[in-house]
Amino acid sequence: MFEKEYDVIVVGGGHAGAEAVAAAANMGSKTLLVTMNLQTIGQMSCNPAMGGIAKGQIVREIDALGGYSGIITDKSAIQFKMLNKSKGPAMWSPRAQNDRMRFAEEWRLALERTPNADFYQEMVSGLLVDDNVVVGVRTSLGIDIRAKAVVLTNGTFLNGLIHIGEKQFGGGRAGEKAATGITEQLTDFGFDSGRMKTGTPPRVDGRSLDYSKMIVQPGDVNPEKFSYLDTQKLKEQRDCHMTHTSALVHDVLREGFDRSPMFNGRIKSIGPRYCPSIEDKINRFADKDAHQIFVEPEGWHTVEVYVNGFSTSLPEDVQYKALKSVVGFENVKFFRPGYAIEYDYFPPTQLKHTLETKLVENLYFAGQINGTTGYEEAASQGLMAGINAHLKINEAAPFVLKRDEAYIGVLIDDLITKGTEEPYRMFTSRAEYRTLLRQDNADLRLTPRSYELGLASKKRLDRMEEKLKNSDKFVEFFRNTSYTPEEMNPILDEVSSASVKQSDKMFKVFSRPKVTMEHMLRLDAVSAFVNDNNLDTEVLEQTEIQVKYSGYIAKEKNNADKLLRLENIKIPDGFDYSKLKSLSYEAREKLEHIRPVTISQASRISGVSPSDISVLLVFLGR
Amino acid sequence: MFEKEYDVIVVGGGHAGAEAVAAAANMGSKTLLVTMNLQTIGQMSCNPAMGGIAKGQIVREIDALGGYSGIITDKSAIQFKMLNKSKGPAMWSPRAQNDRMRFAEEWRLALERTPNADFYQEMVSGLLVDDNVVVGVRTSLGIDIRAKAVVLTNGTFLNGLIHIGEKQFGGGRAGEKAATGITEQLTDFGFDSGRMKTGTPPRVDGRSLDYSKMIVQPGDVNPEKFSYLDTQKLKEQRDCHMTHTSALVHDVLREGFDRSPMFNGRIKSIGPRYCPSIEDKINRFADKDAHQIFVEPEGWHTVEVYVNGFSTSLPEDVQYKALKSVVGFENVKFFRPGYAIEYDYFPPTQLKHTLETKLVENLYFAGQINGTTGYEEAASQGLMAGINAHLKINEAAPFVLKRDEAYIGVLIDDLITKGTEEPYRMFTSRAEYRTLLRQDNADLRLTPRSYELGLASKKRLDRMEEKLKNSDKFVEFFRNTSYTPEEMNPILDEVSSASVKQSDKMFKVFSRPKVTMEHMLRLDAVSAFVNDNNLDTEVLEQTEIQVKYSGYIAKEKNNADKLLRLENIKIPDGFDYSKLKSLSYEAREKLEHIRPVTISQASRISGVSPSDISVLLVFLGR
Repeated sequence: MFEKEYDVIVVGGGHAGAEAVAAAANMGSKTLLVTMNLQTIGQMSCNPAMGGIAKGQIVREIDALGGYSGIITDKSAIQFKMLNKSKGPAMWSPRAQNDRMRFAEEWRLALERTPNADFYQEMVSGLLVDDNVVVGVRTSLGIDIRAKAVVLTNGTFLNGLIHIGEKQFGGGRAGEKAATGITEQLTDFGFDSGRMKTGTPPRVDGRSLDYSKMIVQPGDVNPEKFSYLDTQKLKEQRDCHMTHTSALVHDVLREGFDRSPMFNGRIKSIGPRYCPSIEDKINRFADKDAHQIFVEPEGWHTVEVYVNGFSTSLPEDVQYKALKSVVGFENVKFFRPGYAIEYDYFPPTQLKHTLETKLVENLYFAGQINGTTGYEEAASQGLMAGINAHLKINEAAPFVLKRDEAYIGVLIDDLITKGTEEPYRMFTSRAEYRTLLRQDNADLRLTPRSYELGLASKKRLDRMEEKLKNSDKFVEFFRNTSYTPEEMNPILDEVSSASVKQSDKMFKVFSRPKVTMEHMLRLDAVSAFVNDNNLDTEVLEQTEIQVKYSGYIAKEKNNADKLLRLENIKIPDGFDYSKLKSLSYEAREKLEHIRPVTISQASRISGVSPSDISVLLVFLGR
Repeated sequence: MFEKEYDVIVVGGGHAGAEAVAAAANMGSKTLLVTMNLQTIGQMSCNPAMGGIAKGQIVREIDALGGYSGIITDKSAIQFKMLNKSKGPAMWSPRAQNDRMRFAEEWRLALERTPNADFYQEMVSGLLVDDNVVVGVRTSLGIDIRAKAVVLTNGTFLNGLIHIGEKQFGGGRAGEKAATGITEQLTDFGFDSGRMKTGTPPRVDGRSLDYSKMIVQPGDVNPEKFSYLDTQKLKEQRDCHMTHTSALVHDVLREGFDRSPMFNGRIKSIGPRYCPSIEDKINRFADKDAHQIFVEPEGWHTVEVYVNGFSTSLPEDVQYKALKSVVGFENVKFFRPGYAIEYDYFPPTQLKHTLETKLVENLYFAGQINGTTGYEEAASQGLMAGINAHLKINEAAPFVLKRDEAYIGVLIDDLITKGTEEPYRMFTSRAEYRTLLRQDNADLRLTPRSYELGLASKKRLDRMEEKLKNSDKFVEFFRNTSYTPEEMNPILDEVSSASVKQSDKMFKVFSRPKVTMEHMLRLDAVSAFVNDNNLDTEVLEQTEIQVKYSGYIAKEKNNADKLLRLENIKIPDGFDYSKLKSLSYEAREKLEHIRPVTISQASRISGVSPSDISVLLVFLGR
């Protein structure tokens, strides 16, 4: 059935697989997506949302590189928020709620419109490997499909085992079959494999909830978007709602702990630390009497609702009884219970920075198979694996992003260098250079590089260059143009900033903390410049950041240099980490367990972040 | 988790299950849909089309009764055709191509908008039965959900076994799990069960086809629609295409016959006679050198294509090689191979006319579980089971449609009275009174009855009564209004009909075979009446049929009476059926095998149609 050899085969059609197909095919590789079910391409297996802190930056980076996740998210969004807008721009993180059905449909159609992308529905049960080089895949029907490179993106499907209370059954997601064969074969080749665990909350009927008892969570008044291309901003949005658990809810949940697969030893593998089950939260933070629950609609029209914050694998009767005790959920009707799922992963230290495996040439891994969690983490790996698979088979230089270039660089470097023993999620704190890795400048950082590779389009490059040209020009304007005290002082007075006595260049006063672009636009010269040059909001935002944070960025770079010089400082035997209150909970736990001898060693421990190292340095190094 | 008792639980969310939920819930029953996957509600498992000959009439009947299939079809249609328009109105059959994703999404959203309809995702593994009365279901997690009545609509999922060549594996559809437990339990209760088989063709990539070599099959220039409510007619449509097999294609297919599960004994159960696999067609009609293939798009935007007429369970390499030999398919790329599936059914003679089982009270079966094939057949049974479940638990009289009232009546009477040993499909020839059971008058036949039941809405009744009032008035107009020879003769001349010498009532000349409403509208008095009364196309159509076919309808009723009187005529021993060339192939085969003693006995054999009986009567009875 498959006479010709493909350039690239991608196994799995989730976020990682879909991006891998798009990247390889758009670069010119004849690419085949093999998936167990063509109708579940681009499924959001867990919450109906994209982005969030650090994750939103990754989606912007994927978009800047020419991936599809940002475009699909924009097309299927039902709500948009820029998180952390009150903090500095390094922390600004876009997040969207999505229509689950629309998201999957847009992915499917986007891939269908991609030249060089073919599709085939069947389970892949093994790889064709010739002399430690992968040469294709074998399907469950026994069909051999040959290819120069293979990208595995199996998600939670490899020997997936679903747990609800004391019951367990095979499955890749609720209602879907698990995939078998691949782990066993890779283990035979000498790969180490492990098990990880993740979970998902109940889905419930929105008609059964009393939203009047909850706090409404609307989207931004002026919603932005993910893609640097010309996707549409939302004109209408759907609200989310917030409620919380209580001591009573926790008591009900605790009644089920003896039947919890998390606590009775049935689930041995480790779940995502920062996306814990509700039982885990109660257990780990026993002093907290309430945890937040976000009630997220699953789409524009559906009544189905996602209960964010209530992930659980407790017995279904306990889930129900506990959720009924949550404010607003008194009459809740379940669409399906929450569950935990265990699946195979391969410790990512077995990979090169290109995501190619060290043991089998031209074989790439991306997504949960590498021990990560999250749609965005998966999608970015898929994109990088797709790019590098294409480059490799065309004997071109690999494409590796450094830690100061992209969150994607941080992510992959962390995986490859440190490995991970629990599902790895991105945080801004994992990045040393997060002031550089902002959501607003992902295009400036990455689009030129991707264009050189032949992935990002000319249109994308042109848009980026236009934005850069205009913001540079606007920054120059602020450097060269003077204000008069008469026009400036009312503004300074308004924000309680010291008034000025005489004219000076605008750049300096604009750098003051409370003076914003909105204020500056009140000056006739500024608004005239904006009008004359037809500057859009993206240029205004970029200019403001360039003016206000240029000093801060330089300072951060200096700090990073210091960090490098001081890296080899010794940590005293028996050092008492509990003294350092500013260490993260995770870092303290890991440091106490592993007890590293040097700062350098400490920095390589998964979960010990650059910020934790700074805390140690401040204490030890000075 | 389910504290309260439901009125009705429906197991399965396909065409039958979805209609059952809609009907029971709309009549006021608290109804729960339990399905293995909430994301596959309303799936078109096989071809992306609704309606067709006799089936289109069923959809119109479902709509007239207040079911959803017509509305969903209209909302998701991409092409519409009124088949058999050149024949008499009894044969007119609406058919639509649909967007597969949109169809399922519209079903899901329509059910969510239905008051009293709840949803739960899990496999039902057994029934709760108390003293031969069903009282609920048990899920695979062991959750008991209590209800006053249960409707089973398991489709092909009960112990589903998929075959492709010599390979076989469990599954309810490609990529989906089979359901287990229910058959075993029902068999323990004393039910007879059997196995049936159905199949589906490969899905292919439309981009790999050469449409320039095929014959384009556009939709109607003035497309109509299914629902009697105010759904929209299509403004744009997508084309289908037609091609055909050849001797070469057949030779290639034959090469795989020794590995065919149909021919090597692996599949023992019987498939749908009128929807045979391509290998079956070649085998049964060895003298035919070509079979038609219809290439149907799967939606507005997707490139996926359904290869109608090429259903097969031959090994995938044979499927591929053969399809590549079809004109226009030279470079075909497969999305997935065709396959056959075997599944459990329960011979429907175990049911009452309400679709309640005789053995277990308040338990209803609908769809493929009763041995039928086809979305429309399934949907109509679901609707009737949902209605009757609601009526039964409210101690109301059952709702049974007679053979002269609806195709749905014919369908259920056939199932209950004759049973079926092969997948049962509706045909116009199965109906004795098909002149009465037209697609244009399903609302007149059924909406008043459904309104009385509390299912069809007042709006639906009002629209029906308005249409009836107007068409009656218009018929009266033709009875009472005269033409002049001067205005009538040019028309009669145009259609080569004898000219008239003097004025007469219009009714008579309008009854002539070639004179149509379009012609009559040229008369000033007629067009004035239409304008004055603001008559729409539905009223014009209804009036034309009433005028032109009233005599024919009376004659048919007379024939039907004769049929009843003559029913007991003996068939001579050793009668040679091969002499009767007008018998259908199926009837001849069955009659030769069973050799009935009387016409009455012959008429009860599944697959021997009323038309076949007429043929026998003509030969024997006169």
